[in-house]
Amino acid sequence: MSKDNNTSNITVNTNTSASMVSPDSVTFALAQSHFLVGDITANVEKMRALALQAREQGADVIIFPELALLGYPPQDLLLRPSLSGRIKSALSTLSDIDDIVMIVGYPHVDHHGTFNSAAILHNGHQKGFYHKQYLPNYGVFDERRYFDKGRNQVLFDYKGITIGLLICEDLWEKNLIAELKQQGADLIISLNASPFELKKQDARKTMLAKRSRDHKLPIIYVNAVGGQDDLVFDGGSMAIQADGSVAHEASRFMNQLMLASLNVNTFKFNAQVKAPLSLSRESEMYQALVVGLRDYVNHSGFTGVIIGLSGGIDSALTLCIAVDALGADKVYAVMMPYEYTSKISLEDAQAQARRLNVSYTVCPIFDAVEGIRHTLAPLFNKSPADTTEENIQARARGVILMALSNKFGHLVITTGNKSEMAVGYSTLYGDMAGGFDVLKDVYKSQVYDLANYRNRLEDTPVIPERVITRPPSAELRPDQTDQDSLPNYEVLDAILTLYVDEDLGYKAIVDKGFDADVVARIITMVDNSEYKRRQAPIGTKISKKAFGRERRYPLVNKWSIKG
Amino acid sequence: MSKDNNTSNITVNTNTSASMVSPDSVTFALAQSHFLVGDITANVEKMRALALQAREQGADVIIFPELALLGYPPQDLLLRPSLSGRIKSALSTLSDIDDIVMIVGYPHVDHHGTFNSAAILHNGHQKGFYHKQYLPNYGVFDERRYFDKGRNQVLFDYKGITIGLLICEDLWEKNLIAELKQQGADLIISLNASPFELKKQDARKTMLAKRSRDHKLPIIYVNAVGGQDDLVFDGGSMAIQADGSVAHEASRFMNQLMLASLNVNTFKFNAQVKAPLSLSRESEMYQALVVGLRDYVNHSGFTGVIIGLSGGIDSALTLCIAVDALGADKVYAVMMPYEYTSKISLEDAQAQARRLNVSYTVCPIFDAVEGIRHTLAPLFNKSPADTTEENIQARARGVILMALSNKFGHLVITTGNKSEMAVGYSTLYGDMAGGFDVLKDVYKSQVYDLANYRNRLEDTPVIPERVITRPPSAELRPDQTDQDSLPNYEVLDAILTLYVDEDLGYKAIVDKGFDADVVARIITMVDNSEYKRRQAPIGTKISKKAFGRERRYPLVNKWSIKG
Repeated sequence: MSKDNNTSNITVNTNTSASMVSPDSVTFALAQSHFLVGDITANVEKMRALALQAREQGADVIIFPELALLGYPPQDLLLRPSLSGRIKSALSTLSDIDDIVMIVGYPHVDHHGTFNSAAILHNGHQKGFYHKQYLPNYGVFDERRYFDKGRNQVLFDYKGITIGLLICEDLWEKNLIAELKQQGADLIISLNASPFELKKQDARKTMLAKRSRDHKLPIIYVNAVGGQDDLVFDGGSMAIQADGSVAHEASRFMNQLMLASLNVNTFKFNAQVKAPLSLSRESEMYQALVVGLRDYVNHSGFTGVIIGLSGGIDSALTLCIAVDALGADKVYAVMMPYEYTSKISLEDAQAQARRLNVSYTVCPIFDAVEGIRHTLAPLFNKSPADTTEENIQARARGVILMALSNKFGHLVITTGNKSEMAVGYSTLYGDMAGGFDVLKDVYKSQVYDLANYRNRLEDTPVIPERVITRPPSAELRPDQTDQDSLPNYEVLDAILTLYVDEDLGYKAIVDKGFDADVVARIITMVDNSEYKRRQAPIGTKISKKAFGRERRYPLVNKWSIKG
Repeated sequence: MSKDNNTSNITVNTNTSASMVSPDSVTFALAQSHFLVGDITANVEKMRALALQAREQGADVIIFPELALLGYPPQDLLLRPSLSGRIKSALSTLSDIDDIVMIVGYPHVDHHGTFNSAAILHNGHQKGFYHKQYLPNYGVFDERRYFDKGRNQVLFDYKGITIGLLICEDLWEKNLIAELKQQGADLIISLNASPFELKKQDARKTMLAKRSRDHKLPIIYVNAVGGQDDLVFDGGSMAIQADGSVAHEASRFMNQLMLASLNVNTFKFNAQVKAPLSLSRESEMYQALVVGLRDYVNHSGFTGVIIGLSGGIDSALTLCIAVDALGADKVYAVMMPYEYTSKISLEDAQAQARRLNVSYTVCPIFDAVEGIRHTLAPLFNKSPADTTEENIQARARGVILMALSNKFGHLVITTGNKSEMAVGYSTLYGDMAGGFDVLKDVYKSQVYDLANYRNRLEDTPVIPERVITRPPSAELRPDQTDQDSLPNYEVLDAILTLYVDEDLGYKAIVDKGFDADVVARIITMVDNSEYKRRQAPIGTKISKKAFGRERRYPLVNKWSIKG
């Protein structure tokens, strides 16, 4: 297995008084921090500040996440010809930081290709670099679009310990850590940009425990944090003992410079620091949605968000998330009633806004809808009403919100949940009009869970109980409820999870006991509404398979659901 | 170089009376035909019909394009668990076709992985298969998301000739044909699904000429044809002599079953058939746009298209393309004048519709706009007019067109050109509202070229001359012209081509002699309007780098243009 000719052994000579005496421990700083896509200048400055701070706190080595210098995922910025020069220049500005080893994730461009790499910087010298060997090209990942595959193991010696470097996917595969162990590694350092999905931190812990136990190696796992478009990096960086136990675990969803000291005789992390409590499913989902929205709004330069409240649960929950993400003073709620808006909806929308202390405006859309219908009347020639008229209401609201956005500079956020996005229960350019769909990857049944979760956090529920208990309705015609055209959400979501998240087909889903006609109808609705999703705003991924870059379906698609 | 252990040698015994006598030639049928994504049942039936027709015409071997059984590109349909069973079952239904060798592109799934493959079928037996070795994962291609890399050369003997198989990218790389030659190939057969872009057929010919001359091998190149979402496959299948000359060339953009006979003694294609004249740049562009729209509309099941005419050149050209794609009886033109619509525009829109004989309706949007403004008035509180009011006009038109689409079932097609899409000179949910943007990948200067080209095709120009000569304007405020906010289109398009299609950066573009401030402004506009393009309708790719799946940029993107 061992391929010595494929291994680089690097020695980092410390050349400082500290190295004269043999130390008992080496202290690592895990720089779990948000590095912005494209912003090389700001990222390198952040690295500098963190390195100085870590050194001040006694760290010997600081580790940044995967590709931190450019942010993750940089997408086609990796194809820009000026990339290589910018990266070299940025790395060189770090050369004046002495007395701390910096392990920096960056894209490496040379005549061999472009690599997803980690540089080892020390006292003005680049001691070596490691190129990622396993390049994920599934799900949200397109790494083989940009990167060439590294082919060498890299080990470096520092203060008597031999450290093997890996980047993200490298550690999920079992063979590289095995080779590093065989080549003498005492410790593994892994740089990551691992996006959040439900229960992902549990999966990471399980994998890390197995790898460390299998090879009796401690592991330092540094993850990115923060939102980038539809992805949220959830942190949770860890130091894992060689017995698989978690020695240190950083907070989730937050910047943190975490220190972990390794005893160079026992190769154990010195202090078994109590890890933060595991987050509940609802808590991690909610935090991901907050961070995803917060970072999108702030980094896009919007001064606030505007949201259409309907009185229903989706917009109620979205409002909570927006307030938790941005603060009440940056959230503008608009209720746009029309003929079919119930008194309850008006009351509840107002109650939601009041409880959260956000700006609230009622803007009836009668004039807009009437104007549009007037314009259309000669062309419609008294044809009977159908969903066209419902869509006109939704689109009138879309036009109003967009006009307010254009006039006052706030981002329109939308409230369509994953169940609706899946079956196309939404109006393009209507309720889908906006820049960010907060609940895009949240099934309706999870919307209820999250609403209840958020209400439990405070003595006075922020979402009026009636919003949660009343039957959901789009209120686009008299006495409409969602269940007029859809099965109940428990059944719908179960089928959608199997079809969308698990990729099961018609037969496999029917075999699980669901009504064949219902399954056929739901699957057909999903397939037929791909064109709507193609033009949908982005939203934070929280599931195993989110709509958007993770699920790439053709628009013209003649796949027979039952074939 | 030769790796014999990686090569399969297959002998196809013909077992027919025809094989008793040594033939002078073997006749190949190049099945350049449109195979629909996902529609395995229809595709296999089409293969059957073509095989029988080819046999009737004396062909010994019929060759279908890359992945023809499933259509190309199938995207995430390749991840569906029922794929493997469906494919096996489809291939087995071809087993009753005797006396012709079928070479079928299909996705091969087994315990080694999923491969992009070619099966050799003969008299009810699958004689062998070849797995594509070079998997493109750049531009519009995501093949490494789905496929494993083949590792074996495949040669098969038929009637005394040894045939080497390759699939698309395999032939653009130079080493595989070299290995096949060394292993005894007399002829190369290449299956392709090569999407159109400008001058692509020239590039193919240059490559094929080089490969055949370098190795003194004749090549049969079979390409797909037809539109799939944003891609158009342009056919142009070829039989290339060993000296690099084109022996046969199929039509571009059309189904064609083309026969080519190879002399088994000389290994020359018997008849040097005159190839169709090379298409002009405008002609191939125009045909690609026609086919892209036609196939999207027809395969999405729409009965027709509806288009908003402005009196300007973009909608005029789009109207021509729609009529050429679908026929005048399936095209519905609507002129939606408002306060700033000039008399010239009204006259010219009507003239365009009349000359092309399409349904034409004038639908003034005063009521719709006034209704919307009325609704907004209390919220706007007499703030001064700005682009908000322009967007309201555009969105009122979007709502009207979508309502007509919902009511009558026609697809709304949009008319935004690549220059506008690049700089964001368009209104989301306004003029961008629709299912297909015909000119999405056509720069404004190319719009003029195409308009003039189309006018030259008939004695009476279909686009009134004045539409081409007057200065372009969005007519959203008094006396507005596009050049109020943009440099002239020659300069704009030159900068955009360098930045978007060629990926050059600020410095490199300025170095070519463009004004630095203009370059900075244009590049910033491109970067800042990524969010609009993310929600834009699809449109046919004709350029080297089209917006959409080919250019993947982050929305939150802090890349400094000048860094």
